[in-house]
Amino acid sequence: MSMLNCGIVGLGWWGQVLARSITSSSKIKVVKGFTRTPSNAAEFIEETKLEMCASYEAMLQEKSIEAVILATPHSMHLEQIKLAANAGKHIFVEKPITLSLKESREALEVARQAGVTLAVGFQRRGHPSMVKALSAVRDGKIGRIIHVEGHQSAPGLRIYKPGSWRQELDEQPAGGMTGMGIHLLDSMVSVMGAVSEVEVKSLKLLHDNDSKLDEMTSVLMEFESGSSGYLGTSIATSPYFSLRFFGENGVVEVRKKDLSEFVLTDEMGEVTVEVTEGFNMEGAALESFADQVAGTGTYFISDEEVINSSDAFEKIVNASRA
Amino acid sequence: MSMLNCGIVGLGWWGQVLARSITSSSKIKVVKGFTRTPSNAAEFIEETKLEMCASYEAMLQEKSIEAVILATPHSMHLEQIKLAANAGKHIFVEKPITLSLKESREALEVARQAGVTLAVGFQRRGHPSMVKALSAVRDGKIGRIIHVEGHQSAPGLRIYKPGSWRQELDEQPAGGMTGMGIHLLDSMVSVMGAVSEVEVKSLKLLHDNDSKLDEMTSVLMEFESGSSGYLGTSIATSPYFSLRFFGENGVVEVRKKDLSEFVLTDEMGEVTVEVTEGFNMEGAALESFADQVAGTGTYFISDEEVINSSDAFEKIVNASRA
Repeated sequence: MSMLNCGIVGLGWWGQVLARSITSSSKIKVVKGFTRTPSNAAEFIEETKLEMCASYEAMLQEKSIEAVILATPHSMHLEQIKLAANAGKHIFVEKPITLSLKESREALEVARQAGVTLAVGFQRRGHPSMVKALSAVRDGKIGRIIHVEGHQSAPGLRIYKPGSWRQELDEQPAGGMTGMGIHLLDSMVSVMGAVSEVEVKSLKLLHDNDSKLDEMTSVLMEFESGSSGYLGTSIATSPYFSLRFFGENGVVEVRKKDLSEFVLTDEMGEVTVEVTEGFNMEGAALESFADQVAGTGTYFISDEEVINSSDAFEKIVNASRA
Repeated sequence: MSMLNCGIVGLGWWGQVLARSITSSSKIKVVKGFTRTPSNAAEFIEETKLEMCASYEAMLQEKSIEAVILATPHSMHLEQIKLAANAGKHIFVEKPITLSLKESREALEVARQAGVTLAVGFQRRGHPSMVKALSAVRDGKIGRIIHVEGHQSAPGLRIYKPGSWRQELDEQPAGGMTGMGIHLLDSMVSVMGAVSEVEVKSLKLLHDNDSKLDEMTSVLMEFESGSSGYLGTSIATSPYFSLRFFGENGVVEVRKKDLSEFVLTDEMGEVTVEVTEGFNMEGAALESFADQVAGTGTYFISDEEVINSSDAFEKIVNASRA
């Protein structure tokens, strides 16, 4: 079995999570690193003995790596994708791929032209609970879908370090949408198709903190299919995840912050819960990326889905600023 | 202990549920009945040997009853409340009390003037899971509330009999709002206060049924307090109930169609579930009504809450028609 050797770019909180998720993988491995301020990752670098590159450009010249993992601020993704594609490196990029539909299209096109794989890190979609829920929707198990509701939150107000790019309005438009809500969009569009219309309430309610970010963002959606949807996300409450599809003959749901519960409510309202704990979502996504590069599988997020979620995301951000 | 003797008006599906909920109560008892089409309730009348009155007016002249239970079409409530109040009878009326804010105010005023108790049947609020959730919000256990989300659905398309008033657009505006969503409004306003603004999507999506009612209604709300909210309700999916309050320091939730689960998500996202099964919500609401009439307690829904939910309901109905 071939091993995909990667350079990781960005070693903040999330870059470290990604790197650690594949330490025992037989398919993909981190062999080089680059981060703007290595001092912020000193402990991680010391512990893992990761070999650091002097610059992103220097990393791209390394023959030892075939791919890059981008865990960098969203606004830098497009430029970094272009450089990697031109250097013939495959790319795994954190969500959102970019902050606008136009740039997302451009990123996908650049990768296509260069003949490299560009995979967007929607790792939640690979969780067994999510696979069960989305399969039930696709297979018609709960009949036609009339509505979907999702909520993903985490206390960013407590988690984001002062001075971090995650505290910047330009990097984090519409509150929790950029860091979290986009996961819900990805899962929704994968079975419901494109979003045609949104109405948004994005609020800054608590006045005794320094954050400029909206604390609560709520979205009503209409899909091109005619079905409706709702999405809620907050940076001012507990870690929370819930996604539920309401069908004519039942409701399927993924819940808990680690997605460990798949819940089926049948047409009489009887509930069954299936629990899958400890699934390594990040590792599974990176291995799916490696499979696609190796030609032994297909990455589980399609370009069309990336475009549909990017389109809905842009509509939501625009509406939140209106 | 005194027993409150009631006449029940309307013996459709729900009237029968109410009557049966107090068969073993020591506080309240159904002693007379009146229904427009007794043939529809023949089995119930036969089984319970309930003594039927010839008319509502005749029932109100009965000295043996001190109170009426109104399980009648919403549009008839105000007139029936006036007649009962003028006859000096206490009143337990199904929700929504009326279909407009103006009429709701008038109904409460009429009862106040006559010195009788007027209790609105928001029985879900008395369930122990709900009491726990609302108390946690009121007591500040989960910090300031930034957002609330509720979903209540049931397959009305399957349940409502053809020709029933529950199939009429005038009696059932905004799809599931009238029969179900108003319960969510009641619980929300009890701790969040009045609703200042709503945005609504109310859709008829499935085209292979005879119903004229909207199948899915979604509402974004803003409360006068500045917090936001969402409410979803459908007559085209499974029996489903979920109400959750998102606080700075945690999330409390009531879930399952019988409200049997109270769920606390702490600030780290850890979840604990408390289960209360088999609680007789309808009986408890009717007994609380009896306690207020007897002067031994206070009915658990205040007039202010009735007004706040009626106001929000009217805003939603108007927005759904716009």
